[in-house]
Amino acid sequence: MVTSVDARTGLVVGEVAGETTEAELDALCQRAAEAAVELEGLGRHKRAEMLGHMATALEERRDEIVRAADGETALGEERLNSELTRTCFQLRFMGEVVTDGAYLEVTVDHAGDTPMGPRPDLRRMLRPLGPVAVFGASNFPLAFSVPGGDTASALAAGCAVVVKAHPAHPATSLLCSQALSEGARRAGVRTPAVSLVFGDGAGARLVQHPNIKAVGFTGSLNGGRYLSDLAHQRPDPVPFYGELGALNALVVAPAAAEERAAEIAKGLAASFTLGVGQFCTKPGLLLAPAGQAGDVLRDALAEQVGSAAAGRMLSERIAKSYSDCAAKLLAHPGVRAVAQGVAGDGGGWWGAPLLVEASAAQMDGPLTEECFGPVLVVARYTSPSELSSILGKLRPALTMSLHAELPHDKPVADVAVRAAEQLSGRVVWGGYPTGVAVSWAMHHGGPYPATTSPLHSSVGAAAIRRWLRPVCYQNFPAAMLPPELLDEPAPEHAVPRRVDGKLVLP
Amino acid sequence: MVTSVDARTGLVVGEVAGETTEAELDALCQRAAEAAVELEGLGRHKRAEMLGHMATALEERRDEIVRAADGETALGEERLNSELTRTCFQLRFMGEVVTDGAYLEVTVDHAGDTPMGPRPDLRRMLRPLGPVAVFGASNFPLAFSVPGGDTASALAAGCAVVVKAHPAHPATSLLCSQALSEGARRAGVRTPAVSLVFGDGAGARLVQHPNIKAVGFTGSLNGGRYLSDLAHQRPDPVPFYGELGALNALVVAPAAAEERAAEIAKGLAASFTLGVGQFCTKPGLLLAPAGQAGDVLRDALAEQVGSAAAGRMLSERIAKSYSDCAAKLLAHPGVRAVAQGVAGDGGGWWGAPLLVEASAAQMDGPLTEECFGPVLVVARYTSPSELSSILGKLRPALTMSLHAELPHDKPVADVAVRAAEQLSGRVVWGGYPTGVAVSWAMHHGGPYPATTSPLHSSVGAAAIRRWLRPVCYQNFPAAMLPPELLDEPAPEHAVPRRVDGKLVLP
Repeated sequence: MVTSVDARTGLVVGEVAGETTEAELDALCQRAAEAAVELEGLGRHKRAEMLGHMATALEERRDEIVRAADGETALGEERLNSELTRTCFQLRFMGEVVTDGAYLEVTVDHAGDTPMGPRPDLRRMLRPLGPVAVFGASNFPLAFSVPGGDTASALAAGCAVVVKAHPAHPATSLLCSQALSEGARRAGVRTPAVSLVFGDGAGARLVQHPNIKAVGFTGSLNGGRYLSDLAHQRPDPVPFYGELGALNALVVAPAAAEERAAEIAKGLAASFTLGVGQFCTKPGLLLAPAGQAGDVLRDALAEQVGSAAAGRMLSERIAKSYSDCAAKLLAHPGVRAVAQGVAGDGGGWWGAPLLVEASAAQMDGPLTEECFGPVLVVARYTSPSELSSILGKLRPALTMSLHAELPHDKPVADVAVRAAEQLSGRVVWGGYPTGVAVSWAMHHGGPYPATTSPLHSSVGAAAIRRWLRPVCYQNFPAAMLPPELLDEPAPEHAVPRRVDGKLVLP
Repeated sequence: MVTSVDARTGLVVGEVAGETTEAELDALCQRAAEAAVELEGLGRHKRAEMLGHMATALEERRDEIVRAADGETALGEERLNSELTRTCFQLRFMGEVVTDGAYLEVTVDHAGDTPMGPRPDLRRMLRPLGPVAVFGASNFPLAFSVPGGDTASALAAGCAVVVKAHPAHPATSLLCSQALSEGARRAGVRTPAVSLVFGDGAGARLVQHPNIKAVGFTGSLNGGRYLSDLAHQRPDPVPFYGELGALNALVVAPAAAEERAAEIAKGLAASFTLGVGQFCTKPGLLLAPAGQAGDVLRDALAEQVGSAAAGRMLSERIAKSYSDCAAKLLAHPGVRAVAQGVAGDGGGWWGAPLLVEASAAQMDGPLTEECFGPVLVVARYTSPSELSSILGKLRPALTMSLHAELPHDKPVADVAVRAAEQLSGRVVWGGYPTGVAVSWAMHHGGPYPATTSPLHSSVGAAAIRRWLRPVCYQNFPAAMLPPELLDEPAPEHAVPRRVDGKLVLP
C-alpha cells in the first residue's frame, strides 16, 4: 500500500493507492498507446488548448493541491503556491511552443539536380515518439512531478504520458493527475493522456515496457543510473533523459571578493540553503580567492550560516542521506567545519545549514560529488592556473556561476567561463544558480552525471525535442502529406520552415 | 599487422599499419583534445574553408583513392568515383550548413518580468562536444568511412575526430586520412583534426577513452550493440550514434501491382541487388498483394533475379554471413526459393541474388531480421488489415517504401504510411530506398535497431546536431559572450535566431 506521510510529523496520514501490479501496468500502457494516437491526431492547436485546460484545472484546485503538497513535503505554502504558478505557466508556455510550430523543424527540398544526379522531393518534420514514461521528482512535487515540465513537454509533442508517482508525495500526485485528466476531458480527449503508476517495481517495469518509447527522470545518481541501465538493456533500447544531480561550482574572482564580499555571502547563503538545499542547481562548491578578500568572504558566509535555521527535509531517506554525506565531507582529509546553522526542533526530519572549508590540494572523493542538502564547501585558489586545475578535477554539472569584476578579473573569468562551457549547461554571471526560468533560451542539462543525455534540456522550449523524432517523406503526393509539409499550407498549418535551403517565416 | 586484401583475389597485397597500441591511442586522444580546442576556436567560417580544402585534397588524389578502394572492395571504379564525388559534396555541404549558422539554435531572451517574478537575461547556443570517435563502415569505403558523413558533420560542428579504420579497407582509409590532413594543413590547422586507429581492440578502447565525448558508428547489429554497451557502461556514458542495419519493407498496393508489375519488378530488382545488396537501405521485404496481380509481380521479379549476375562481396566475413542468413531464411517454415541469380566465377567472395517467398502467417525469426546481401523476401497480403498485422510484426527500419495508385489504393496506402511513420525514418512513395540524398531535408535513421539514437540523422544537414550540446549564458556581459549571442552581432556572426520568442533572420 502506498501511504501519504506528513513531513512535519513523520506520521502516516493516509493510504493513497495500491502498488501498481504487472497486469495493471500492462493495461495502462495499452491505453497509453491509444492515447498517443489520439493526442497526435488532435494536431498542434488542439493540444495547445488541452495544455491550457490542464493549467486551468490545476489552478481551480490550487488550495487543495498546495495543502496536500505542503503536508507531504513541508516546503511551505508560499513556495508551493509559486511552484503551482510555475507549473501552470509551463503548461501554457508549451502550448505556445507547439502553436509556434518551429519545433517541428519542417524542411522541404524540392526535386532537383545534384553533382550525384537527380534528387527526389524530400520533406522532413518531427513526429511524436509514442507513449513515454515520466518519473516524478521528490523536490518539486508539482513543477518536476506529475504535472511538471517533462509531462508538459511530452504532451505538447503529442506523446501520452505514464507518470511514476514519487513515493514522498503520492496524494499530491493523485490530485494533480485528476486535474490533468479533467483538463484533457474539457479538451474533448477521450483516452488517458496522463496516467499514474505507484511503486518502484512498477517504475522499473514501466521503463522496460515495450509500449514506452522514451523516459524522463529527475532524481538521484544511483536511481537514475539504475533506470537508465534498464532502458539501455531493453531488446529495443529507448532514449532515457535523466537529470541525476550535480555539484554546481560558484567561482568568486579576487576583485569581486574585494568589492562585494558581504553581498555575495548573503546571496550565496540564501541560494545554497533555499528549500533546505534540496535543488539540483544548488551551488555546492565555492571557489574563493586565497588571501584576505577571500577570508572576508568566507567569514561573512560563516556569519550567515551560523544564524540560519535548519529546515525540514522532504523525507527520512533524504535527511539521512544528507547527514551521511555531510559526515563523509567532514571526514575527508583537509576538510574542517566553519559554521553550522541552528538545529531544528519538532517532528519531521531536519537538515541544518553547514559551511565547510576544504584544501584545494585534496579536491577529490566526496568533494567532487553532490551532497543533496544545505551544505556548501569552500575551497581557495591562489591563481588562475590553480583555479583551472581545481576545475579540471570536477565532474560536469548543471550550472557554474562566476562573480567577477572586469577588467581586473579577466584572467580568472577566462579560466572559469572556459571550464564552465566544458563542464556545465548554464553559466551564471554575477548571480546564483537556483531559480531556473521557463523560457525559450533556458537550458537545463549538462554532460554526465548532470544528465544522461547532454544534448537535451528538461526545462524551456527545447524540452519538447526529447519526445520527437524525424520522419522524411520522399516523393509523396500532396494528398498523403502531413499538412505542415504541403507547398502551400493552410494558415493554421503555416510554420517556420527551411525550403530548398532557405529559412522562410510564415 | 593490419593488411590490405584484394577483394577480387582474396590475397593479401600489403601491410598498412600496426594495430594501434594502448599508449598510441592515449597519445592520439590527447592530441585530439588539443585539436578540438583549435577547431572550435577557428570559428564557423574557417571550419567551412577547411572542409572545402579537405574536399579538394580528396579530389586531387581521386585516381589513387578510387584505385585503392576498388582493390579493397571490388565495388568498381564507376561506383567509387561517384562515391568520392558524394563524399566531397558532403564535406562542402557541411561547410554550407555551418556558414548558414542556424544549426547553432541561437536563442536570446532579454531580462523581463514573468508570472513567477523577474527573469534574467538568457542566451543559448550549441557548442561542440569535444573529440569524438567515428567507426568506418565496410560498405561505403569513402562516404561512410574516414572522410564520410560522420567525420564531415563532426568537423563542421567543431569536434576533432578519431576514426577507427574498417579492416576491409585499411589502405583506402590511410590514403583518405592523409588527404584530410593535407586539407586541414592548407586551412592552417596545426593539430590533427582527424586521426586514425587500427584494430578492434583499439576501437573498443577508443569508445571508452575519457577524452572521447561521442561516437558515430555504421555497421552490424552485433558490433554496434557491443560498442553501444561499452559507451553506456563508461563511468561517464557518452552519446553513441549507431546505425545498425534494417529490414526495409516495400509495399506494393493492388492497383499499382496491376498497372506497373513489370516496371516495379525491374526497379526493385535493381535496388535490392545494387552493390551486391550491401546497403543499409536495401529493400529486404516485398509485401505484395495476394492474387493474380501479385503473382505477376513475383514472376516478373523471378525473371529479373534469374538472369541477374552474382557480384563480389566486400569481405569473406560478409559473404559467409550472407550465405548463413540466406540458409536460415530458406530453412524457415513456409519459405521457398523462387529464383536465384547466376553464380559467380573467379577469385574473391561471391554473393548471388536470391528471391524467396514466405508465408504471411509465419513472419517471424529470420523473416524479421536484416540479411545483408542481395536477397529479397516476398510475402503476400490479402487485405489492408492483414497488411497491417504483418507490418505490426516488423522491427523498425531506416526506410519503408510504398507503390500505390490513388485513389484506388488509398486503404492500403493509409495502413502502410501510418506503419511507416511509426517504424521508419524515411518513407518512399513510388520509388526504391537505396540512394540517400545529401540535403537539408534528408533523414537517415529510425528507432532501434535501425539506429541506437532515433532522434538523430547520420545523413543530411541535421547530422551536425549529434556533435553539439547547448550552453546557456545567464546575465553575461557582452565582452564575455560568444559573438553570435551579442545583441548586434557583426555581419559574419549574424545567424538566424530566436529573440524574445520571435524568429529573426539575418
